[in-house]
Amino acid sequence: MRDVYLVGAAQSDFGAFPRESYRSLFAEAFVGAIESIDGELDKSRIDEAFIGTLGVGGRQLGLGGPAVTEHVGLNGAPCTRVENACAASGSALRQAITAIRAGTAEIALAGGYEVMTDMSGEQTRYWLGVSGETEWERMAGTTFAGVYSQMADAHMGEYGTTREQLSRVAVKNHANGAKNPQAHLGFECSLEDAMNATAVADPLNLYDCCPTSDGASAAIIASEEVARELTDAPIRIIGSGQASGRVGLFQRPSLTEIPATRSAAQQAYNDASVTAADIDFAEVHDCFTIAELLAYEDLGFCEKGRAGAYIESGATLPDGSLPVNLSGGLKSKGHPIGATGVGQVTEVFKQLRGEAEDRQVDGLSRGLTHNVGGSGGAVAVHIFEEGWA
Amino acid sequence: MRDVYLVGAAQSDFGAFPRESYRSLFAEAFVGAIESIDGELDKSRIDEAFIGTLGVGGRQLGLGGPAVTEHVGLNGAPCTRVENACAASGSALRQAITAIRAGTAEIALAGGYEVMTDMSGEQTRYWLGVSGETEWERMAGTTFAGVYSQMADAHMGEYGTTREQLSRVAVKNHANGAKNPQAHLGFECSLEDAMNATAVADPLNLYDCCPTSDGASAAIIASEEVARELTDAPIRIIGSGQASGRVGLFQRPSLTEIPATRSAAQQAYNDASVTAADIDFAEVHDCFTIAELLAYEDLGFCEKGRAGAYIESGATLPDGSLPVNLSGGLKSKGHPIGATGVGQVTEVFKQLRGEAEDRQVDGLSRGLTHNVGGSGGAVAVHIFEEGWA
Repeated sequence: MRDVYLVGAAQSDFGAFPRESYRSLFAEAFVGAIESIDGELDKSRIDEAFIGTLGVGGRQLGLGGPAVTEHVGLNGAPCTRVENACAASGSALRQAITAIRAGTAEIALAGGYEVMTDMSGEQTRYWLGVSGETEWERMAGTTFAGVYSQMADAHMGEYGTTREQLSRVAVKNHANGAKNPQAHLGFECSLEDAMNATAVADPLNLYDCCPTSDGASAAIIASEEVARELTDAPIRIIGSGQASGRVGLFQRPSLTEIPATRSAAQQAYNDASVTAADIDFAEVHDCFTIAELLAYEDLGFCEKGRAGAYIESGATLPDGSLPVNLSGGLKSKGHPIGATGVGQVTEVFKQLRGEAEDRQVDGLSRGLTHNVGGSGGAVAVHIFEEGWA
Repeated sequence: MRDVYLVGAAQSDFGAFPRESYRSLFAEAFVGAIESIDGELDKSRIDEAFIGTLGVGGRQLGLGGPAVTEHVGLNGAPCTRVENACAASGSALRQAITAIRAGTAEIALAGGYEVMTDMSGEQTRYWLGVSGETEWERMAGTTFAGVYSQMADAHMGEYGTTREQLSRVAVKNHANGAKNPQAHLGFECSLEDAMNATAVADPLNLYDCCPTSDGASAAIIASEEVARELTDAPIRIIGSGQASGRVGLFQRPSLTEIPATRSAAQQAYNDASVTAADIDFAEVHDCFTIAELLAYEDLGFCEKGRAGAYIESGATLPDGSLPVNLSGGLKSKGHPIGATGVGQVTEVFKQLRGEAEDRQVDGLSRGLTHNVGGSGGAVAVHIFEEGWA
């Protein structure tokens, strides 16, 4: 298989932007991604595009991919909308990588978008609910906070994970996000505030939950030949893994792990010929604080059941052995569903290039992204490394 | 690039099935596809799946791919929902081919589904409309019949295409579909009936329009190594092309051609090292009779503006030089949106293997499928040939 390189990546600001459309947000990300490339890239050279969106609000439910690529001037290039709920653009990245590996593209675009803040609470619940299992979760009234609260409750019961350990995820990610000018909730929060916030779905409170956001993201990937033309600071995509799981949480044997994360991670590690111990930093899918703790375990960063102790150890802080969510994560940076996966890639791109400004951590050379759809119905994991093959 | 083979394909019956769900219909297609393979294939060997659906009715708008692959027992294999409106499963097939070409899969599943007949006319118009351009087509009240009627009117004005020529498409496809036990509207219609049917959007009448249908489809594709294990009657996928066009018809320079069809076809011909003259038969996207005439021209079967004369010549009848829509096409076989592209592949599979029963045409060795999303916002074209590479 051919080697694949990440040559450009950017996101729009994530937040609440009542004056923007899905098209204007996507254009902001796309132009940013083109400008982030060291060399000059004529956009007409992009061979194929894959755009992730859940289509929240139903703005352009059909042809939601071509509708944004035409807006940024990619007339004619094949574009496919990819939907795997919150893992939409992580899955889009995988398709773009596959196109380069197959040789059907030399340069491919992966991106995503979502507009979520211009609707009522009831509409938002509907549009988030559509990624739950229909009959026995959404239509029975279960929200995503409700689904993840079951996981949190089970993890606390089985492994003694504490309220404080959950809140430490929020405190860490807000501290990171406060240094990210593109974050939706770019402010710090104290451990006390995080622990004592209003309940949302017990045991999860307001600070355990990510916001719903507007935003877009875009990444340009290329074959080695093209990458050598465009940059002297290469980032190689060394591993790609994806897996599916039962859409409904209630259909899975355990509430305290996400099998699709374990499988996608193993595929990505095998693909990259590395193990979890070789990862320098990660952007993981912390839609809820418990989701980040589950990710630590399912990605192999710590042993099963030890995630609470792991966050408490400081390992995933910026000065720890494996910083997680330096961008602020979904919790602070925000979670515009279809944009999230490639938004994670944007942070990895910035960190590996030393362009993360106030939140830059030096000495990182291998990063991982972990993007979850629904409560684990689809998961995409990718691994990125500095340097040529 | 590695060679790719079509080893199995099937569709559910297309029609109105109030007792079926999207999952039961998909299972029918999937089981049929597995059973259509000459050898035995353990479904756990399927490495990756791509499922096309527009999600009409909003049943499982998020994770609409994994929701059906889990139902047929593909637990864990990566599955991605692909959406390109009515070209959803044509695009899914392309992704599956790319995965085999890249070597990330040895065996891949492409399929699609839609349930459309259990809702009101108003809901149906909404769900079809979402693949039109939102602001200036759907929200302005333009239906798809309205969009295609503009193309028909323009083609009649520019090239002298007649009412009778449009109707000959319907008569041919109904005659073919009457021999297809899986067709939704499996009855013949006379030229007189087709010409004098109730107006829908002038100049298009009821017999110029395909039905909305329930149905599903599935195709199993494989690398050469696996294909040699599974069959002695190989069908090689020799060409894949996909292109995008402006989502809104009003944004394109001409009403009488679909640029994305021309581009996707040229890519597929180049990929296959053939020309239009080398195609023995085709399944084209006749959502409206005018769409089949446009396809003749844009695929290069006849000269620009000559499609009316071409249908009149009988060239595309079963005993003509290039039979088109032997299955009955969307017009008679039906059009369950996400299922249509791989439904076309099913007919090519049956014809090339001599399994098309009453509608079998002998001596065919190279077939083409043409799948259009919206009014041309996305188009996928694939070419299939008997024999090993």
